[in-house]
Amino acid sequence: MSHFTAELLGTMMLILLGNGVVAGVVLQRSKAYQAGWVVITLGWGLAVMIAAYMVGHISGAYLNPALTIAFAVAGKLAWAEVGSMIVAQMLGAFLGAVLVWLHYYPHWSKTESQDDKLAVFATAPAIKHTPSNLLSEIIGTFVLVFALLAMGGEGVVFADGLKTLIVGFLIVAIGMSLGGTTGYAINPARDLGPRLAHAILPIPGKGSSQWGYAWIPVVGPVVGAVLAALLYGYVY
Amino acid sequence: MSHFTAELLGTMMLILLGNGVVAGVVLQRSKAYQAGWVVITLGWGLAVMIAAYMVGHISGAYLNPALTIAFAVAGKLAWAEVGSMIVAQMLGAFLGAVLVWLHYYPHWSKTESQDDKLAVFATAPAIKHTPSNLLSEIIGTFVLVFALLAMGGEGVVFADGLKTLIVGFLIVAIGMSLGGTTGYAINPARDLGPRLAHAILPIPGKGSSQWGYAWIPVVGPVVGAVLAALLYGYVY
Amino acid sequence: MSHFTAELLGTMMLILLGNGVVAGVVLQRSKAYQAGWVVITLGWGLAVMIAAYMVGHISGAYLNPALTIAFAVAGKLAWAEVGSMIVAQMLGAFLGAVLVWLHYYPHWSKTESQDDKLAVFATAPAIKHTPSNLLSEIIGTFVLVFALLAMGGEGVVFADGLKTLIVGFLIVAIGMSLGGTTGYAINPARDLGPRLAHAILPIPGKGSSQWGYAWIPVVGPVVGAVLAALLYGYVY
Amino acid sequence: MSHFTAELLGTMMLILLGNGVVAGVVLQRSKAYQAGWVVITLGWGLAVMIAAYMVGHISGAYLNPALTIAFAVAGKLAWAEVGSMIVAQMLGAFLGAVLVWLHYYPHWSKTESQDDKLAVFATAPAIKHTPSNLLSEIIGTFVLVFALLAMGGEGVVFADGLKTLIVGFLIVAIGMSLGGTTGYAINPARDLGPRLAHAILPIPGKGSSQWGYAWIPVVGPVVGAVLAALLYGYVY
Repeated sequence: MSHFTAELLGTMMLILLGNGVVAGVVLQRSKAYQAGWVVITLGWGLAVMIAAYMVGHISGAYLNPALTIAFAVAGKLAWAEVGSMIVAQMLGAFLGAVLVWLHYYPHWSKTESQDDKLAVFATAPAIKHTPSNLLSEIIGTFVLVFALLAMGGEGVVFADGLKTLIVGFLIVAIGMSLGGTTGYAINPARDLGPRLAHAILPIPGKGSSQWGYAWIPVVGPVVGAVLAALLYGYVY
Repeated sequence: MSHFTAELLGTMMLILLGNGVVAGVVLQRSKAYQAGWVVITLGWGLAVMIAAYMVGHISGAYLNPALTIAFAVAGKLAWAEVGSMIVAQMLGAFLGAVLVWLHYYPHWSKTESQDDKLAVFATAPAIKHTPSNLLSEIIGTFVLVFALLAMGGEGVVFADGLKTLIVGFLIVAIGMSLGGTTGYAINPARDLGPRLAHAILPIPGKGSSQWGYAWIPVVGPVVGAVLAALLYGYVY
Repeated sequence: MSHFTAELLGTMMLILLGNGVVAGVVLQRSKAYQAGWVVITLGWGLAVMIAAYMVGHISGAYLNPALTIAFAVAGKLAWAEVGSMIVAQMLGAFLGAVLVWLHYYPHWSKTESQDDKLAVFATAPAIKHTPSNLLSEIIGTFVLVFALLAMGGEGVVFADGLKTLIVGFLIVAIGMSLGGTTGYAINPARDLGPRLAHAILPIPGKGSSQWGYAWIPVVGPVVGAVLAALLYGYVY
Repeated sequence: MSHFTAELLGTMMLILLGNGVVAGVVLQRSKAYQAGWVVITLGWGLAVMIAAYMVGHISGAYLNPALTIAFAVAGKLAWAEVGSMIVAQMLGAFLGAVLVWLHYYPHWSKTESQDDKLAVFATAPAIKHTPSNLLSEIIGTFVLVFALLAMGGEGVVFADGLKTLIVGFLIVAIGMSLGGTTGYAINPARDLGPRLAHAILPIPGKGSSQWGYAWIPVVGPVVGAVLAALLYGYVY
């Protein structure tokens, strides 16, 4: 399997499981309806973990354009790979969101809130405040990338297969501790791909796809990821 | 111990713990009453994990006819094993459900809802919609089998004993992210064996065993599992 | 450190953390007040895990008279060790309960329910029904011991330190799936030692220590554990 | 990277994630608002785990003055290191709290309770009772240090990278079982650094920083940690 296919497939799985857990919690009549933040954050962590176990041995399981760019900045990934990987991640994220839409098909018409329906696909700020929302995404992604780089550093050794489990817990940590503000996109593909799916798919009673906010979960993660790569190179 | 005994014993443990956690959450007067989706999904994941640790070294711990068939399709299990394994899994699932009934014996008469009593044994759709319900079971089982095949692929290495833990987390992930629609049977034995137990056992005030729905958690999982085996063979 | 000291210390830690999590959830004004079944079950699983990491390399971390007897029946522990280990476990459990009483000292007078105060120390059935309560303790302990024996069998290999983590998850599984009926003592020392502490300690407004029920979490676990050892010897 | 920088960076990450999870749960309008004790305790455990994975291979990831002193007492750390490490931990904790303040910036003015705003930074007793509060911090830190020393003892072996995961679970265990009384500071830097940040930062509608209580989460942890080191040396 090519790196392109692996990143596409991995990101599709990530979004199927990640957006899936949001769907389960916010769509009415779901058995997981209002199951709460612990399910959201564990579900997203497990989504990353499972996707990474599936394709990590092939492409490295970046599954995130910001992470991909940061690893190129850090000299751990060839720049020539970056472009096609990002395309694969965007496509995978879009397709994953389509699968979530299909999986929860009869629940869309039972759910009244337009915000909840959008929330299945894309993030939204708890309080709209552009500089703070941007900063939240920068900080969240900074922690993600800095921790991943540190855990890949010299002298850090993991038993076979263990590191991917810890990466899943890292996502849970970021979600629980830093997700309350903007919903921790921390990944441009995770937000943009599904937002596009929301705009295109025939979802009953859907509202705006909130494109005015869409740049924040793209720019914030890229800035945070690059800052982490630079600071990591400087301090370690 | 023969593979037959191991699969029977493992599936019995799986259902004792898996249906047990549903019983704990839905039966009235239980100390776990209404403990929520996080307990249901963690409980089922742990049920698979513990059962797999118990018999995985003997029979491979398939514990699931759909998975058994998919691994035969993928060429990872002899077809000659499939028939007897499925019989063992069905028997084990039935016996596990009988144990759950015994374990929670005084709680049945305290529980009013017929739906709740059936839910301990068999799955039911959140919204009845045949094609969507079937698709949900196909997607859930596809993720299960595809991930298991990928995690068993060349180049994926696990420290001794770690993989079974991750398989447990995979079940938690599927439950949290994809279980909200049909209750993620993703295993014909898990649904059919206990449904038969529900039909036969003298449960006070029980209602219909809903046999009209019973084909979906059989056909869906088998279709999803075989599709995963075929796609895995194609892309990996 | 002798096996006696290790079992005493380990069981004291087990009960400090295990009864501690119940205290946190049921005592009024606690920050964990009514945090629910997920905290109870995770807390007990972690209590066993941490205690086992502390003394497992010294004494095997049985921490449970029923388990101790079962391993002697299975030929995995010398009968000569059994008596002193059980004494150590009982003493440790009693002392652990005293520590919980001290740790939550100002909360006892703020808690009205006598049942809740007793629940910190000892188990009680959700529905009083002697044969079913006994059976619940037999089944819960059977699963514990059978799984431990199976995970210690030939052909089951764990990376260094991993098995103890899985044992913790096994306790979580038993709690979530089978604990709803009698509160899963599954350990005579866990119930009897703290019940004695409840009887002796000056707890404001405490009620009966319910000695009439106390034999069930002793006899049930021992019967379940021995049955597991015998069946394990027969089928594996 | 020097030990000083590592401890500063690690403690900053610890507090960003640890105080962050409290912020998410108690600040109004947060997506994690009132997500409960399970999120608080898992979040803090993951905070320690992630911080330890980031700098453990450089400085040992003490991240806690009480732990640092105890390891010097136990002869496992040079006394010459202790002073600068504590300074680094205090600085890191202060900076981490500043990051939490920034991350949740628009939420401060939406949160009415002065107690909740302080709770993001520093601990407070559930019931004010000086000797009991002090004892709670002593017991909690005793368990932390004693378990860490025992898990580092001869004959305890962990697969590469596994021990840090277990340390995270140890923090979860202490939180769930012993945190209900004083909020388990168990670390002078964790409490004092952020309390100072609370006093200095321009938080809308903030109340007292409760300096009268501040000595307890400093003295209690140091006493508990040293007692654990002494007892460990005596019994093991």
